[in-house]
Amino acid sequence: MTVTFRWLKGHGTENDFVVLPDPDGSVHGGLDPALVAALCHRRRGIGADGVLRVVRSEVAAGEYADVPPDGESTWFMDYRNADGSLSQMCGNGVRVFARYLAECGLVDTTGPVPIGSRGGVVYAHFLSGGNISVDMAPARLLGQVQISAGGRTWTATKVSTGNPHAVVAVDDLAEAGPLWESPGYEPADFPDGVNVEFVREVVPGHVAMRVFERGSGETRSCGTGACAAAVAHISERGIPRPVRLRVDVPGGRLDVSWDEEGGVVLTGPAVLGPRGDLDPTWLAR
Amino acid sequence: MTVTFRWLKGHGTENDFVVLPDPDGSVHGGLDPALVAALCHRRRGIGADGVLRVVRSEVAAGEYADVPPDGESTWFMDYRNADGSLSQMCGNGVRVFARYLAECGLVDTTGPVPIGSRGGVVYAHFLSGGNISVDMAPARLLGQVQISAGGRTWTATKVSTGNPHAVVAVDDLAEAGPLWESPGYEPADFPDGVNVEFVREVVPGHVAMRVFERGSGETRSCGTGACAAAVAHISERGIPRPVRLRVDVPGGRLDVSWDEEGGVVLTGPAVLGPRGDLDPTWLAR
Repeated sequence: MTVTFRWLKGHGTENDFVVLPDPDGSVHGGLDPALVAALCHRRRGIGADGVLRVVRSEVAAGEYADVPPDGESTWFMDYRNADGSLSQMCGNGVRVFARYLAECGLVDTTGPVPIGSRGGVVYAHFLSGGNISVDMAPARLLGQVQISAGGRTWTATKVSTGNPHAVVAVDDLAEAGPLWESPGYEPADFPDGVNVEFVREVVPGHVAMRVFERGSGETRSCGTGACAAAVAHISERGIPRPVRLRVDVPGGRLDVSWDEEGGVVLTGPAVLGPRGDLDPTWLAR
Repeated sequence: MTVTFRWLKGHGTENDFVVLPDPDGSVHGGLDPALVAALCHRRRGIGADGVLRVVRSEVAAGEYADVPPDGESTWFMDYRNADGSLSQMCGNGVRVFARYLAECGLVDTTGPVPIGSRGGVVYAHFLSGGNISVDMAPARLLGQVQISAGGRTWTATKVSTGNPHAVVAVDDLAEAGPLWESPGYEPADFPDGVNVEFVREVVPGHVAMRVFERGSGETRSCGTGACAAAVAHISERGIPRPVRLRVDVPGGRLDVSWDEEGGVVLTGPAVLGPRGDLDPTWLAR
C-alpha cells in the first residue's frame, strides 16, 4: 500500500513554506526533522524555507512537552526551519498559516484569529485588502555596534526581536556590495551571530531594505528583520509613535507599525500556491 | 470554473525539472514562456531549473515550425530553461523525461527508447540498476585557454559539446575558491560566455568536479559539463578508448563513456518526486 499525505506551498513576500495539514496528529505526529529537511530541499524535495504543520492546539499540547494548552487557540503552528530545527515564531510564516486556515474555512476571519505557537498565542487580523496583520514580539533597542561589508564600515543599531539584528542606514542599498558572506561584526556584540538589515529611506514613511540572515545568507524577506529595520529607522529619525512604516523587501512589500507601548504589528501578503499529495518515498535520492 | 493541470517534479543529480504531461497539446499548446518562468520560480512557483513538457512528436511537429517529424520518436521533449527560453537538449533532463515515460507505461523500456528533441532524436537506455544512459552530442576538443578564479590562473582545455566549456584540472576542488562570480577568461576565446569545470582525479577512472554554468552560477550538476570534463580528462591523460569514467558532481554521481568514434554516453539517475494539480492563478504574486 502506498501512503501519501497532502501538502501545499505558500509564501509571504517570497519567504516560502510547505504547509502540512495534520489536524489530529495522525499523519505526522511529532514531525520528523529528517522529513522536514527532505521536504525543504530545493532540488530533491518540494523546496521551502520551512514547514508549517497545521495541528489542533489540544493535540499539539499532548505531543510536545514544551507546548502547554494556551486556552485561546484552536490551531497550533508547528513551525520548523528548513534544516528540521525548531523556531518559536516566523513572521512571514504565520500569515501563510493563517491564510491556510481561512482558505479551508477552519476559522472565522471577521475577527482576530488566535494561533498557537511555541512563542505563545499570536493574533492574525484579515484586512479587507487581502493582507494579514500579526502582532509580533516587542523589539528592543540595544545601542550601537559596528558593521562592515563591501569594504565599508557603518555604525549600526542593535535590535533584539527575540532574534539578534543590526540595522544599518544607507543612502543606496548597493553600498553593501553583493553580500555573499556575512557582514563583519564584533563577536562580543553578537555571540550567536546576527541578522543584518541595510535600510534606505525611499520617502518619509517608506523604506527599502536588504537582509542578510545568519545561517541563510541574503534572502528575499525576513519578517523580524523588517520589524527591526522599522523600529531602528523610526527611533533614529525621532518619528512620533504610533506610526506605520512601509518596508519594501526584495520579495515584496510589508508594513510595520509601532505603538507607544512598544507593540509591533507586521502586515503583509500571504499566498497559497501549488499543492498535491506526496508519497514520502518520492523524496528518496 | 477552475482549470488545473497536472505536474510532476523530477531531478537528475539535483538538476531539477517540472514535468508537464500534455500528450495531445490540448493543455499547454505552444508553451507560454511566462508560465514556464512562473513555474520555475523557486519561491512563488514550484521551483526548477527547467520545464519538460511531454507531448506526442506528431503533435509537436504541428505546433513548432522548427520541429520536423523525425519518423522515430513517439514522444517529444519540449524543453525550456527556467527563464522560458528554448534549449535543444538537456543531458540530465532527458533522463527525467524518460523516467516519466517509463513510470506511466508509455514506452517499452526493454530496448532503447527514442525521444524527440529540438536537438534531434536521442535514445534512452534503461539499465538494470535503475540508471538511464543517453547518447549525447559528440564533444570536440578545441585546444587550450587560460582560466582564472580564486586569485589563480590555469591552462584549461576548451571543449564544445554544443555548449562552450573550459575544463581545469586541479589537485583540490577548493582551489577555485567560492565561485560566486564567473571564472575569468579571454572574451575572444568565449564570445558567448563559458561553462567552467574544475576536475580532480579521485582514483584512475574516477573524477570529481565542480561546475560554474554561464547564466546560472555554480550548480549541483551539469550533464554537458560532466561530458566535457570527462573528455578533457581522458584526452589529457592519454587514456585509451573506449573508456568509461565515473564523474562525481555535487548533486550525485554520473558516468561518461567515450568511444573511438567520439560517441559520448551520459549515464545517471533520474528520480520523480512531488506531484500535483495546479491552478495557474496560484502562481500570481
